Amino acid sequence: VTAQRGVRGDVAVLVPAAGQGVRLGPGHPKALRCLSGEPLLVHAIRRAAAVPSVGQIVVAAAPGAVKLVSELLVGVVPADISIEVIAGGSSRQASVASALTAVGPRPIVLVHDAARALAPPELFERVAAAVREGHPAVIPVVPIVDTIKYVDSAGMVGGTVDRTALRAVQTPQGFRRDVLVAAHGCAVDEHTDDAGLAEKLGVPVFTVPGDDRALKITRPVDLVVAEALLTRRGPSGRA
Amino acid sequence: VTAQRGVRGDVAVLVPAAGQGVRLGPGHPKALRCLSGEPLLVHAIRRAAAVPSVGQIVVAAAPGAVKLVSELLVGVVPADISIEVIAGGSSRQASVASALTAVGPRPIVLVHDAARALAPPELFERVAAAVREGHPAVIPVVPIVDTIKYVDSAGMVGGTVDRTALRAVQTPQGFRRDVLVAAHGCAVDEHTDDAGLAEKLGVPVFTVPGDDRALKITRPVDLVVAEALLTRRGPSGRA
Repeated sequence: VTAQRGVRGDVAVLVPAAGQGVRLGPGHPKALRCLSGEPLLVHAIRRAAAVPSVGQIVVAAAPGAVKLVSELLVGVVPADISIEVIAGGSSRQASVASALTAVGPRPIVLVHDAARALAPPELFERVAAAVREGHPAVIPVVPIVDTIKYVDSAGMVGGTVDRTALRAVQTPQGFRRDVLVAAHGCAVDEHTDDAGLAEKLGVPVFTVPGDDRALKITRPVDLVVAEALLTRRGPSGRA
Repeated sequence: VTAQRGVRGDVAVLVPAAGQGVRLGPGHPKALRCLSGEPLLVHAIRRAAAVPSVGQIVVAAAPGAVKLVSELLVGVVPADISIEVIAGGSSRQASVASALTAVGPRPIVLVHDAARALAPPELFERVAAAVREGHPAVIPVVPIVDTIKYVDSAGMVGGTVDRTALRAVQTPQGFRRDVLVAAHGCAVDEHTDDAGLAEKLGVPVFTVPGDDRALKITRPVDLVVAEALLTRRGPSGRA
């Protein structure tokens, strides 16, 4: 596996991890919330580092947490993968843009939320493979199991959405490096994901199947769920 | 609590439980899949029976499973609540319509999926209370945490949905009895929920906050998640 990594290495992973986790409780960057005794960020980085084609990982931490995060990641990433921790910006988008400037000449960039700490290595590889096969932007998606309704500000239903054409988006999202640079160069909308920025440039965005383990861990109940998934899959979180 | 039930009792709960659980694996009605050693249906009915204003419960079982389901529910429902198990139809909608004919003169009817087996009694009460306060149709909803995209049949993204106005719908859904009867009398669309049928009649549908425990248990991973939620809340599943 180590040999494969060294041979390939065409993928850089960016992890914006500077946000405050208000929904998981105040006072702590959400990426540093603990799951089974380890910060979410460490779970996420360990899985990213287990992806054979990943050669570089860049973490954007809160400016005051760069040193702490660097120390947390000692020993998590093998020596043949480049790891950098930089100071993130005031928004997720600013953090991704900063991390992007630290990426070397690798043709494929994945952007991954630390809150999706249990996204398995094979999901990273699936997204990267689709970019390598020629798709400039690739996102993992899962079907929506619940009925979805439009609801107005008074709490009244405005209609039922046809969910057969809708998918919930996970991360890592994958991009040709030049596409992600262009998307962030033009970014004006703070309320969209990275693929949304690419969409605004007219870049076609392709989808691949997501993974139940890539759930977003943002609320206390999600920690309970994530612990259960970890236990089912064994201590490493790998199937 | 028993006294309260006898006093109020203005609510009937209908539970369509005739469907096959293809997503949880074939060969077994999905309502009879086990969670912590008990069928999902038993978990669901026990919680419905713990709602102070519920006076009647009607379960629509697969025609070949009426006797089995009746036996499973012995002792689950207190003697002061009427419980009937009827043969369901070939679709969820047909099962609800059949169950509706078995409802006595109670003014409020809740329709609840057995697959949402851990929906807590307070969620039933919240929905029923909103109907009692004058809303003819009421659904519990939760925010959507993931980004949502339109995806075409070729797997390409067609755009990002503004999820601020979208909510995921749970059950129990609550109705004035005459409204639900009218909705099912006019039903032609097999692909909508009960509130969707009411919407088609022009009935205003109100929303109340849902509950994390009311997740739909349809895939093997959902059973893992549900077990975790049960453990967190104690053996009864109540907070």
